Amino acid sequence: MAKNLLRGAAIELIKSAEMMQARSDKTRITGGKIAFVPTMGFLHEGHLSLMRKGRNLCDELIVSIFVNPTQFAPGEDLDSYPRSLERDLELCEKNGVNAVYEPPDGQLYPDGFQTYLTLDDLPHHLCGLQRPIHFRGVATVVAKLFNIVKPHWAIFGEKDFQQVQVIKRMAKDLNYDIEILTGPTVREADGLAMSSRNAYLNDRQRKDAVCVHKSLLNAQEQVNSGERDAQKILEQAVEFIKSFDGTDIDYIKICNPETLEDVEAIEGPVLMALAVKFDKTRLIDNMTIGV
Amino acid sequence: MAKNLLRGAAIELIKSAEMMQARSDKTRITGGKIAFVPTMGFLHEGHLSLMRKGRNLCDELIVSIFVNPTQFAPGEDLDSYPRSLERDLELCEKNGVNAVYEPPDGQLYPDGFQTYLTLDDLPHHLCGLQRPIHFRGVATVVAKLFNIVKPHWAIFGEKDFQQVQVIKRMAKDLNYDIEILTGPTVREADGLAMSSRNAYLNDRQRKDAVCVHKSLLNAQEQVNSGERDAQKILEQAVEFIKSFDGTDIDYIKICNPETLEDVEAIEGPVLMALAVKFDKTRLIDNMTIGV
Repeated sequence: MAKNLLRGAAIELIKSAEMMQARSDKTRITGGKIAFVPTMGFLHEGHLSLMRKGRNLCDELIVSIFVNPTQFAPGEDLDSYPRSLERDLELCEKNGVNAVYEPPDGQLYPDGFQTYLTLDDLPHHLCGLQRPIHFRGVATVVAKLFNIVKPHWAIFGEKDFQQVQVIKRMAKDLNYDIEILTGPTVREADGLAMSSRNAYLNDRQRKDAVCVHKSLLNAQEQVNSGERDAQKILEQAVEFIKSFDGTDIDYIKICNPETLEDVEAIEGPVLMALAVKFDKTRLIDNMTIGV
Repeated sequence: MAKNLLRGAAIELIKSAEMMQARSDKTRITGGKIAFVPTMGFLHEGHLSLMRKGRNLCDELIVSIFVNPTQFAPGEDLDSYPRSLERDLELCEKNGVNAVYEPPDGQLYPDGFQTYLTLDDLPHHLCGLQRPIHFRGVATVVAKLFNIVKPHWAIFGEKDFQQVQVIKRMAKDLNYDIEILTGPTVREADGLAMSSRNAYLNDRQRKDAVCVHKSLLNAQEQVNSGERDAQKILEQAVEFIKSFDGTDIDYIKICNPETLEDVEAIEGPVLMALAVKFDKTRLIDNMTIGV
């Protein structure tokens, strides 16, 4: 693998699951270690930070680009989800990615497909409340990608906190021999969490969107000032976000970071997480807050 | 690996998932190929025939012994399922098995376990009608065992025809890089399909149990005589089995071998499958019949 890098080999674009598996087998049989960053493309600095984390660990860095239909419900933004394959490949190459797996539509869900991963508890919180099939789709496609890419490490962004918990649980429950790593949320200068969906925002919405992150900072300040009542903190956050025209709160919660169950009193580190719609654009953010 | 066999190395009993994974990694990194026969133990000639099939393919033959609780509903025979580890290990050693993975109770379903594999269609037929959670448990444990044993081939008995279809579909849907192979049903001299559950039968039941297989042979004879109406064949089979005292038919079906959906007219190879209870002992059998 190191030889490959020294040669400055061009990044490889792989379309076939079987070819991806064969490449990973070849890496593994020579003792090479594989790090994997699954993405839906339209890459931003958040993705790139995960790639750099992987690059430092591994001999072979693999990125997948796939807008996974099974995690979108009818009426969600599957069709409009932003795409930019050429730019994504350039960014991958610049960040030391060895190969990109980008399956064509239909390859991962052929006729007769019928097997899904379902989790009993974790999906029934936060984003799962409004998106009941979302985490079934996430867990299923990630299991598929694990079997296709065969990595030693898989790296996910903490912005999608619930997704990380679902994947850690799924990987443990199904005995995947893969270490799940995370990277911190990367933010714009004004604090907005980077997201491919930020591209949907108009200028006014982009400016207002900072309220999502600001509500988390406010909450930590309240805790610092001695507030321990989660309900009171949430009420203030709701009021704050509603003060921005055209915002629609999907959920806002203070919860146990492991179980995602609501907490009433803040007595240690807890997760505060929220989803806010700006017209049709749904943004999420989260932060560990606490004493 | 071959060296290992020449040395006549004793069979290894592995209790830990991590040690099993490490052993398989070691096999794979030296180019060794792994065949895997998952079992619930209390081995009989049916299991042994699958082991011999695997032995002929691989460098490393792994058997698992685990009575999987998630495929038993409350009131089924989880607690009484027959066990004989010492004898099983002897049989494995005699049949060229390199290692047996036998996890202790609780290892595969620790506290907080919540991830299951569910299939949309295949479980809603045949055995799944009376055992609605059975195939969820089977698909889940087999996925876990695939991730623990990391085989190139996994081998299942055709006596559990629906299980084979579920596992083939699951492995394809989740992109497991594992070839699913099957071995034919092995029968006692009188035609009774071998099963660990045959141990539950008393002498009278054991004698009568041949009616299960006989009903399949009768059906093929009717087809040979020109009968094409599945309903008529099934009616005769029901009448035949009911003529044995104390039998209770769970289901008896003639169906499409791929989808397991009922067929009306026999115009090619079809699956005939049935489950019959002798008091509390439930026996299954199946045969491809047709013109």
